[in-house]
Amino acid sequence: MLNNVLNITKKLISIPSITPEDLGCQKFLISRLKKCGFFIEEFNFKDTKNFLASKGTGRSFLFLGHTDVVSPGDIKKWNTDPFVPQVIENVLYGRGSSDMKGAISAMLIATERFLKKNPYHLGRFLWLITSDEEGNGTNGIRKVIKILEKRKEKINFCLVGEPTNEMLLGDCIKNGRRGSLSGKINVEGIQGHIAYPTLSKNPIHMSLKFLNEITKYVWDYGNDFFLPTQFQIYNIFTNNFSNNIIPSFLQIEFNFRFSPLQTVQSLQNIVNFLLKKNNLQYTIQWKLHAKPFFSSSKFLINTLSKSIYQIMKIKPRITTTGGTSDGRFLTKISDEIIEFGLKNTTIHQVNECVHVVDLKNLSQIYENFLSLIFL
Amino acid sequence: MLNNVLNITKKLISIPSITPEDLGCQKFLISRLKKCGFFIEEFNFKDTKNFLASKGTGRSFLFLGHTDVVSPGDIKKWNTDPFVPQVIENVLYGRGSSDMKGAISAMLIATERFLKKNPYHLGRFLWLITSDEEGNGTNGIRKVIKILEKRKEKINFCLVGEPTNEMLLGDCIKNGRRGSLSGKINVEGIQGHIAYPTLSKNPIHMSLKFLNEITKYVWDYGNDFFLPTQFQIYNIFTNNFSNNIIPSFLQIEFNFRFSPLQTVQSLQNIVNFLLKKNNLQYTIQWKLHAKPFFSSSKFLINTLSKSIYQIMKIKPRITTTGGTSDGRFLTKISDEIIEFGLKNTTIHQVNECVHVVDLKNLSQIYENFLSLIFL
Repeated sequence: MLNNVLNITKKLISIPSITPEDLGCQKFLISRLKKCGFFIEEFNFKDTKNFLASKGTGRSFLFLGHTDVVSPGDIKKWNTDPFVPQVIENVLYGRGSSDMKGAISAMLIATERFLKKNPYHLGRFLWLITSDEEGNGTNGIRKVIKILEKRKEKINFCLVGEPTNEMLLGDCIKNGRRGSLSGKINVEGIQGHIAYPTLSKNPIHMSLKFLNEITKYVWDYGNDFFLPTQFQIYNIFTNNFSNNIIPSFLQIEFNFRFSPLQTVQSLQNIVNFLLKKNNLQYTIQWKLHAKPFFSSSKFLINTLSKSIYQIMKIKPRITTTGGTSDGRFLTKISDEIIEFGLKNTTIHQVNECVHVVDLKNLSQIYENFLSLIFL
Repeated sequence: MLNNVLNITKKLISIPSITPEDLGCQKFLISRLKKCGFFIEEFNFKDTKNFLASKGTGRSFLFLGHTDVVSPGDIKKWNTDPFVPQVIENVLYGRGSSDMKGAISAMLIATERFLKKNPYHLGRFLWLITSDEEGNGTNGIRKVIKILEKRKEKINFCLVGEPTNEMLLGDCIKNGRRGSLSGKINVEGIQGHIAYPTLSKNPIHMSLKFLNEITKYVWDYGNDFFLPTQFQIYNIFTNNFSNNIIPSFLQIEFNFRFSPLQTVQSLQNIVNFLLKKNNLQYTIQWKLHAKPFFSSSKFLINTLSKSIYQIMKIKPRITTTGGTSDGRFLTKISDEIIEFGLKNTTIHQVNECVHVVDLKNLSQIYENFLSLIFL
């Protein structure tokens, strides 16, 4: 039986579970967790496999992870086969080594060792594993969370095992993420011959004052944990390619990355205000990709920071930077979500790798963390 | 033999010479002009027919026209067959009646009558007729003018028989047209993930100050004959449709309609100045569609105005408004170009028509004009 984190990580890497395929990774995890006394519920939708493992009662802690990986891309650019794990000079190479089969293996070993030492622990311990985190999540966490919502599941603390560290294992805990809101504005003009501009309305010219105002607008100044809310136009276009025609419309497509200092409504209000202020005829479509989330629990952050310090002798930074993460879906069942895993320096790249010692250290950090959470 | 302008116009309308087809219109004109003693040179390129007719020596006058017409469009919307001329209540209906088979017929009758009365006129009389004015002119006037340039032809006075009148026959002479210059600017940004705008450069945001400045820029105030030079952006776009990406470039496409107060170089200098002033990395492509032209000859304008007044008892406005015209190509062989023909109220529309009396009056105006030019 595989009884160290390196070998388990190698076993999982050797399964080419390109999103949303699982190909048996979860079967292996389930068999190990069952041996520890976990109750398993599988939630499989179409090509996606998911399972929830739970054990014990009382204050609950959930570990979130995924068994799928991104495509290896151009295999010729890899120095090793991405799905044949190899250790070269104490570094393990393979797709998923850092994102996030290594962290899953570390948590499995941590779970097994903690439960062996503490068979009668306090609290409720849950694992939630999906197989399309790298895809759009349609048949993964989105559907599972809907089920847990229906069941009125309330989780006290969540840990997402995504790679968060930038230079050294332990240098960064994420205790939240910004929200993401997109919009598409269609400004109506009046098409006409370019030789007679007074007979038409050029939607490009009409929109420039608005575009200047909205790109200069200060939404907020952020706070200790969040960067200021930011607005970016990602596309702008008309449907006219004829040099003697004034176009009939201008499409402006933009994205907000916003802190909890804003709400979807507050952002929408200001965009509409600036459009009306500039007397533009327009329609607008909105799409919310992610609400911001933020863990204010000192207990959760301090407990993890302490566990990290015990092993690594460094104090992690607590940040909310970067893109969105699956943590956002947990907001529906939990208010306290943090993220901590391996280093993110090689994820989604060719020659993805992890230092063997980081795997061992992460499993010890996780084990310390579990013992502090459940005792 | 057809000896009045109505019948000649009917004959030409009955030939469905949709651009660039001629289908025999020019053969008919050539036979009539030969009878008047004109020397004929045909310049046929691919699907396009063109001819130059010339007679006499000395101060030269050239009449420019075209035998092609635009497509009738949806024939069901016509009250009559567009290629079966019909007179209903003194109005002649048919494609090309106003643009410009009517004017050609009027000039043919005027030419024949003038030469009958003045067989020994002074000066050199030329006709230039093409069959793709309504197309892009590739095999029409562009190629013929190249030949005349090679021959160092210099024409003193030109009359373009395009429809210029707005309310009444005789209300408008055009003594020039604005130029048309287009440009395509490609502003270079740095593509990146929208969550990290500091790591990339958004070409849309970077360009807004420039776009505001150039759309507000006052190029000139025009003069007695020309509207102020005008700048219009006709298209703007990126190649990015992903809401989490900052695009790598912004394409800005624009058109100038400019008066002789500007040169191509003066416009290009200011555009480049404003781009550099805003520290933009860019490439730019230019396309000159038409140089502005303007006839300053009092003799030419006064002679035509007098001819109009004798028949219509009204004084024409002298303007340079509207889009470009084939007159622009004549600038290479002549400095004095004016335009005068029928009314432009129904051209390029369904049920294109001309009042029968306007045909007669135009041929008399042309005849008076010829006698004043050549005596």
